[in-house]
Amino acid sequence: MNHLAVTHRATDNYAYACANGEVCLMIKTAKDDIHSIQLIHGDPYDWQNKKWVCNETTMSKSGSDALFDYWKMHLKPEYKRLRYGFELNDGANIIFFGENGFKAERPTDIAQYFCIPFVHPSEVFTPPSWVQDTVWYQIFPERFANGNKTNDPKGSLAWGSSEPKVDNFFGGDLDGVIENIDYLKHLGIGGIYFTPIFTAYSNHKYDTIDYMEIDPQFGDKETLKKLITICHKNGIKVMLDAVFNHSGYYFPPFQDVLENGEDSKYNDWFYIRDFPVVTDPAPNYDTFAFTPFMPKLNTQNQEVRTYLLDVARYWVEEFDIDGWRLDVANEVDHDFWREFRREVKDIKADLYILGEIWHDSMPWLRGDQFDAVMNYPLTRNVLDLFAKKVITTKEFVENMTTVMYMYPDTVNATAFNLVGSHDTPRILNECMGDKRRLKQIFTFLLTFMGTPCIYYGDEIGMDGGEDPGCRKCMVWNESQQDRDMFNHVRKLISLRKEHPLLANDGELSFLHEETADSNCFGFMKSNKNKKILIIFNTADQEGEFQIPVELADHQMLNLWSDSPFSDSTITLEPYDFIILELT
Amino acid sequence: MNHLAVTHRATDNYAYACANGEVCLMIKTAKDDIHSIQLIHGDPYDWQNKKWVCNETTMSKSGSDALFDYWKMHLKPEYKRLRYGFELNDGANIIFFGENGFKAERPTDIAQYFCIPFVHPSEVFTPPSWVQDTVWYQIFPERFANGNKTNDPKGSLAWGSSEPKVDNFFGGDLDGVIENIDYLKHLGIGGIYFTPIFTAYSNHKYDTIDYMEIDPQFGDKETLKKLITICHKNGIKVMLDAVFNHSGYYFPPFQDVLENGEDSKYNDWFYIRDFPVVTDPAPNYDTFAFTPFMPKLNTQNQEVRTYLLDVARYWVEEFDIDGWRLDVANEVDHDFWREFRREVKDIKADLYILGEIWHDSMPWLRGDQFDAVMNYPLTRNVLDLFAKKVITTKEFVENMTTVMYMYPDTVNATAFNLVGSHDTPRILNECMGDKRRLKQIFTFLLTFMGTPCIYYGDEIGMDGGEDPGCRKCMVWNESQQDRDMFNHVRKLISLRKEHPLLANDGELSFLHEETADSNCFGFMKSNKNKKILIIFNTADQEGEFQIPVELADHQMLNLWSDSPFSDSTITLEPYDFIILELT
Repeated sequence: MNHLAVTHRATDNYAYACANGEVCLMIKTAKDDIHSIQLIHGDPYDWQNKKWVCNETTMSKSGSDALFDYWKMHLKPEYKRLRYGFELNDGANIIFFGENGFKAERPTDIAQYFCIPFVHPSEVFTPPSWVQDTVWYQIFPERFANGNKTNDPKGSLAWGSSEPKVDNFFGGDLDGVIENIDYLKHLGIGGIYFTPIFTAYSNHKYDTIDYMEIDPQFGDKETLKKLITICHKNGIKVMLDAVFNHSGYYFPPFQDVLENGEDSKYNDWFYIRDFPVVTDPAPNYDTFAFTPFMPKLNTQNQEVRTYLLDVARYWVEEFDIDGWRLDVANEVDHDFWREFRREVKDIKADLYILGEIWHDSMPWLRGDQFDAVMNYPLTRNVLDLFAKKVITTKEFVENMTTVMYMYPDTVNATAFNLVGSHDTPRILNECMGDKRRLKQIFTFLLTFMGTPCIYYGDEIGMDGGEDPGCRKCMVWNESQQDRDMFNHVRKLISLRKEHPLLANDGELSFLHEETADSNCFGFMKSNKNKKILIIFNTADQEGEFQIPVELADHQMLNLWSDSPFSDSTITLEPYDFIILELT
Repeated sequence: MNHLAVTHRATDNYAYACANGEVCLMIKTAKDDIHSIQLIHGDPYDWQNKKWVCNETTMSKSGSDALFDYWKMHLKPEYKRLRYGFELNDGANIIFFGENGFKAERPTDIAQYFCIPFVHPSEVFTPPSWVQDTVWYQIFPERFANGNKTNDPKGSLAWGSSEPKVDNFFGGDLDGVIENIDYLKHLGIGGIYFTPIFTAYSNHKYDTIDYMEIDPQFGDKETLKKLITICHKNGIKVMLDAVFNHSGYYFPPFQDVLENGEDSKYNDWFYIRDFPVVTDPAPNYDTFAFTPFMPKLNTQNQEVRTYLLDVARYWVEEFDIDGWRLDVANEVDHDFWREFRREVKDIKADLYILGEIWHDSMPWLRGDQFDAVMNYPLTRNVLDLFAKKVITTKEFVENMTTVMYMYPDTVNATAFNLVGSHDTPRILNECMGDKRRLKQIFTFLLTFMGTPCIYYGDEIGMDGGEDPGCRKCMVWNESQQDRDMFNHVRKLISLRKEHPLLANDGELSFLHEETADSNCFGFMKSNKNKKILIIFNTADQEGEFQIPVELADHQMLNLWSDSPFSDSTITLEPYDFIILELT
């Protein structure tokens, strides 16, 4: 038995509260090492004749990656309290694993067992309930649609007349979004994530000048009110982007520091290293990255906190926005985000809080800070398999499994899954222009777990390289849109609504059949009533996939073509996929 | 190389902020598997010619337990941001380990590296600075001293006239403590931890009736004020016990529920399962353990929260107490404790918050809840080695190492270390009455890391079995006290004050020399200026311990006898110890 691989701690992804008084326990063991695991569990205070009363339940293996097997189970402790340990059986030996490590015998002392002291309903990770059914659509306002020519910045270029540059403008605005609500409704999306709309200097608006005003080039507060009302009328949620890690260079308090140096009352609003404050040859103050135009805000300063929290409350209270996306959220202190959460949830309990974090985000997803983070580890895996073709389906499944077991299921259910954004090359470019692969990516994104986000224009096959290339003007001329791609995405969203199982209404498990072509893989979503299989051929040649034998008895329906299906071997065209409902 | 054993995550004990902008990184590998580790690190935004600029630093092995080696290092990132990965060398191969697992080559993509996004000074785990030098003394007020006969409960027994029972009283009170401040001062302690003193039914007072009043048998608010003033004048901190997990049966709101059933406005203050509320044959409401006399409080209820937070603030604000010890802290929700912390620290920033938790406490020690927990894992190890003699010195060192690496060093520095309390048999009993072993335990407790606590009477060799046996009346007749033991403890406390290294002013490492008797072991405390070795012989026979060769050049002073020492082999009497200063 590989003792060193056995990992469990009564916190985070290993032990967490679920709905209905249940807890979920997960343990990691070396791949193909352990045959079975018995969970030994009981109430810490349940003693009879000086002996602890405990029960045994068999755990089941629920996933594997390149190195580890993952075992998971749900349990509902009668008195909400639990002590537990694992009896591991590798076929030759049975050994106990508890809080103090391995023991040859099952201990009688409960101090040797792990502990979940009390299952509090308030400690279930609970994002707003609407989120898990929402398909997001990301809009970069300067480039989505120009609905009002009178507010165009000076020197704006004609819509789509040239390539996007770091510093050019095309006049996109909020009226443009209002005008195109029908387009979004027809596509079927349920929420818009707007990159920043507050007064700022650049075209991307991540260098805020005034957090309390709409940038005049986008409209005014009335326009936003109108937009939100129309969105809500159409069942579309609105999420704004809060850039609280740093301000813009032209943010008045920073200008005051530049002007008044040591005498400025805003000195402590930033991390100034010495005076006078300079930007050349390098800024002598903390910045986002090394960008002098984005001085980092000191969220330890009470005035800064008060100011930013006022901002956070204001747009919720006055404009009824549905979510805050938090820019560079990982570089702001945890305590600020805890206060942020309390303040905004106090006003609107089902407000959604999404953090921009590109790496392991467990410390922000413990229930006291964010509801979700942008799931870039998924992005990377999806692109590596479908677009760049640098990993095998086996590696893909292993990598996805690793990512899934990094977090509780309750977190995974609303992971914000994206395959591209204003910060990355467009997926069509990543796919080398191959639209079959792009379609597969959308199919995966919209049938996997979590909540998917579509970057404006990807659904009509727009292309573009790295920022600023990925920020082209939206193409509105239908003859220049890829309508086939649009219909593909629309159909996926519609299927997802029709079959909640395609969203987050069941369990997910990967299918990677030994008998199938190595280019093919799939996953199964299942609940008590039915199962849906989604299977992909990721190669430029025909592929075969065997329906797992244990599923052979089911009736099958091809949901994509809406026709019965009965083959046990699926033949898939190059870069094709199939969605099968099993009842 | 044993890949499966390699463990790191950028959180908790593996990565944390320290003083002065430093971070501490720790990684766990299979024991004796890895020869060396290079940390590859840099600022995430520091790129030159499209290549990430990174540095290499050699890590050092800092501890080992039965299964793992632990490697640790401190680093101060210039711009407070860090991406990092580990290059592991097992003598044959070098392999990279980062956030996405193992890679044959050092990756160029920083997404493969772990991330510390920004080192915020506020995120250093910072208990009040006075705590790490404090020696605590635990008083069970009913049994420490009777200073006022007029407030004795009816039927009180003469002091020490009979064995303690679950329900008998001896009249101990706060005046008794006031009268004996000189005793405590002479012993040298720096803080008193009082088990509950608020109005309650039992002799232990863990079944509160009125959280806003001193139990009349202990005195009144004036007495407490007087006590705290005298303590503070003598440099002694005062910590009270908050029993917020449950109330007593006679707590008026619970009585109201018993009386008025479904009509009581206090129904939601408790977890009532159905009406009428009964205690027989089993309570139909949640309780502490299965004790009908301790109904569990519903800290999710806003009125309960407000009430308990009022209580928490009141005794700090009005009485200037220095600490709250939180009873059954693990069974109350995290969010309540976060609010508790904010409220009490707002009033008194250097108030100490100590949670009663017997198991792995990482989720409470992330800086947003407690300053420390009661370190029962240490208790168990100490008793197993010195008292019960059921583990070897090798196992002891391994177990202590496991416990130490479960938490950040910043947490370990103020771990509340106890070897006995009102909840456990007295240590003298655990030592089978052998006072040599008891002395060793005190020596260990008062020279190891963390903050030690002495249970009243242990310092004069009192005995007693399991609760209520361990709650005997304090012996005040000097001829019945073990004065030799008292002087032993007093000398240790005095040495600890004289040599901050014996408290928490340096690094700790274990000495377990291959050449020494297996019954002997020791540890070294060191800082830039000097080192102190503390070495024990845990057997009933003479033992030998070799001074490690790398320390041979130092001048040595036996701190216990205050005499020079020069032998390279230390011979220790049965159950003896030595404390050597190396300069």
